[in-house]
Amino acid sequence: MSNHPPLGFTFAGVPCGLKKTGAADFALIASDRPCAAAAVFTRNKFAAAPVIYDRALVTENPAGLAAVVINSGCANACTGDAGLADAETMAAEVEAALGLPARSCAVMSTGVIGVRLDMSKIAAGVRLAAPQLSAEGWDAAARAIMTTDTRPKVAFREVGGVRLFGMAKGAGMIHPNMATMLSTVVTDAAIEPAALAALLREAVEVSFNSVSVDGDTSTNDTVLVLANGASGVTVSGGEGEWENGRMGERENASALPLSHAPTLSYVDFAAALTSLCTDLAQQIARDGEGATKFITVRVAGAASDADARVAAKAVANSPLVKTAFYGGDANWGRILAAVGYSGAEVDPMRADLWIAAGSGEWGSGGAGERGKGREGERENAPTRPLTHSPTLQLVRFGQPLAYSEEVADAIFAEKEIVVEVKLGLGDGQATIWTCDLSHEYVDINGHYRT
Amino acid sequence: MSNHPPLGFTFAGVPCGLKKTGAADFALIASDRPCAAAAVFTRNKFAAAPVIYDRALVTENPAGLAAVVINSGCANACTGDAGLADAETMAAEVEAALGLPARSCAVMSTGVIGVRLDMSKIAAGVRLAAPQLSAEGWDAAARAIMTTDTRPKVAFREVGGVRLFGMAKGAGMIHPNMATMLSTVVTDAAIEPAALAALLREAVEVSFNSVSVDGDTSTNDTVLVLANGASGVTVSGGEGEWENGRMGERENASALPLSHAPTLSYVDFAAALTSLCTDLAQQIARDGEGATKFITVRVAGAASDADARVAAKAVANSPLVKTAFYGGDANWGRILAAVGYSGAEVDPMRADLWIAAGSGEWGSGGAGERGKGREGERENAPTRPLTHSPTLQLVRFGQPLAYSEEVADAIFAEKEIVVEVKLGLGDGQATIWTCDLSHEYVDINGHYRT
Repeated sequence: MSNHPPLGFTFAGVPCGLKKTGAADFALIASDRPCAAAAVFTRNKFAAAPVIYDRALVTENPAGLAAVVINSGCANACTGDAGLADAETMAAEVEAALGLPARSCAVMSTGVIGVRLDMSKIAAGVRLAAPQLSAEGWDAAARAIMTTDTRPKVAFREVGGVRLFGMAKGAGMIHPNMATMLSTVVTDAAIEPAALAALLREAVEVSFNSVSVDGDTSTNDTVLVLANGASGVTVSGGEGEWENGRMGERENASALPLSHAPTLSYVDFAAALTSLCTDLAQQIARDGEGATKFITVRVAGAASDADARVAAKAVANSPLVKTAFYGGDANWGRILAAVGYSGAEVDPMRADLWIAAGSGEWGSGGAGERGKGREGERENAPTRPLTHSPTLQLVRFGQPLAYSEEVADAIFAEKEIVVEVKLGLGDGQATIWTCDLSHEYVDINGHYRT
Repeated sequence: MSNHPPLGFTFAGVPCGLKKTGAADFALIASDRPCAAAAVFTRNKFAAAPVIYDRALVTENPAGLAAVVINSGCANACTGDAGLADAETMAAEVEAALGLPARSCAVMSTGVIGVRLDMSKIAAGVRLAAPQLSAEGWDAAARAIMTTDTRPKVAFREVGGVRLFGMAKGAGMIHPNMATMLSTVVTDAAIEPAALAALLREAVEVSFNSVSVDGDTSTNDTVLVLANGASGVTVSGGEGEWENGRMGERENASALPLSHAPTLSYVDFAAALTSLCTDLAQQIARDGEGATKFITVRVAGAASDADARVAAKAVANSPLVKTAFYGGDANWGRILAAVGYSGAEVDPMRADLWIAAGSGEWGSGGAGERGKGREGERENAPTRPLTHSPTLQLVRFGQPLAYSEEVADAIFAEKEIVVEVKLGLGDGQATIWTCDLSHEYVDINGHYRT
């Protein structure tokens, strides 16, 4: 996959003085034409000023955004009315500098909470970044939004003549209570805002929301996607493909050229968008603060997908499980115990547990695995062969097996580990990615502001 | 308060070889007469064998228990049918050794999950402990149930001629997913099992369940109370005091002398029981694995008590908040953010935040503070003066105040810290105790089994 960003987008990343280190802390993304926009925001009730600003903006102008400005070093959260005014000013300064209409620039911030933005530094950032905008600036932009990230996170996809580029930041994935996750995805596809919003929601659920806990989000979490149509390829579906009453939304015409060939199906575009978001989300988990291991938690055979998700998240968020992974200790009882208190329906006498080395890429993963004719099969076989050996079953029908401690230790010593719990109750399944809990996490978060 | 255990109870604590260190790991408590019994158990779906055993036992024989046997070093959890048979054998061996009727001994276990009990060591423990039972053995018993605890946890209360003694173990309070909490409380009061059960549930809710997360419990958590009536004092209430239809349960007569003076009111006994349980629960939080600070999280002005509890627990369980406390970093934004994602009803523009040094003993605390005529008062004053200064308001009506960073740092540098969030929405309030998240926690839990 080549690193060509979508047509019509330019990027810049510069230092504007918000970070004490002098590192880049100001990013700008611009489109040469208006974009369809869609976003998913934090559910935190203390939503930060830029979230409040963008939420209104995307609702008001879903087919006319043309820029995104992002700063690191200060979250502009818990800053009250003054903070909201700062976010507005930040957007207006970008719009003025780039000659854009009012209300066409989205804003994101990440960093310390409860501190006002230094608007003179923001102004300096705009002055510095605007002339540097270029198609090649994506790497600089991705670096400028980093906080405790140890590396920039970017991903590219190309499908049917359409390109997608995404960048993300976020590293506090140990228990993602608050470590802000920001991501901007840009594409040169032409797509209606309502369709884009629906596809984004679906993509986020199985990507960014699968390294996080529903509701356990920071004040600033934002995923924004802009589609400018510069490829000339329109994303659309056959009649009936776009259902659930959302077809009607098409009648609210946007300025984008939706009726001309060539076209790309919703399904293909959605697959590329989901793949890109999953790539970014996994990069975040791999770069978790202090992380030494990448852990895939898979729950199958649950009474429902929701139950599987609840159980997988309980395992992924248990500090006792995470420290055991860090210590390389095959303390598997903690995994079952986390499932047991998760709230998911469990029959202890039906639960199986496997561990394996690897990244949990079960072929194409997820949904395709169901209904493979194993109904009625009492034996909980692993969903499908893991890509990496060794694979070890520790528990069968709720009873510990006499396994080789050496093999278990060898698996737990790996950098990438898969845990699979099979509940034997139904068809529900979910996959969550996380990392271990290390000394370095405590270091990073004990003195974050200093 | 003198350290006299209740009349008629004897205690022993010995090493039986389950702990590799050779430390005491086997405790026995016996009563010279049958006891009323009540218990609260883990809600974990992977309940351990002793929990399954005791749950049935207390239901079947609530007025006839006479002993408790407890081992540390092995949780007898996730051990299937064989584990349940082991728990039965453990109880039967104690009953035989002490000449007790069948089904009169409760069982508790704590330690590693998924490993069978070594029954020859258990038998050795019974042989060794039975002859050592004495009224003075409470300290040895309390030490024998320790796992990662750094000190034994005991408490005594005396009220109206009745004595109570409680011992507890549990130290994984950083996020109490799984660190087993065991507690046994004995009293020489005479009380009906149904009343004892109701009073215990209420006491546990504001004590042990306030250093824990509802449902986030280990496979083995158990609080058991035994009342043998040896004091000759009967706990009872006037007609009507014992309401909610539970009076009817009295008709199921127990063998205990309920009709003779002297008596102690339910209210007074409940206060002593709650005070004792709170004492033990706070000892657990103070001895949290790797804990360097004791933190009281208080939420007031919530829409309901349940909302306050949810919000306080989110703060108390946030690794980002806990590492900030460990680092002595006044990163208060993390506290509000945790409230914001907790699910509790929040109006950001009404939220206030205070911090203070101290242990959060607001006089008699809790319920008595309501309805003090402050209705309509828009200003969220602290609920009542904190016992320790300094007290510092950081946020008012959702806006950060210009506070002294030096004073804030001084508070965060204390060993005991109170956080109070006032939501300005209603009368709901809750207090949760917790501790910080340190390097040592990671050490302890990264290599627990080794």
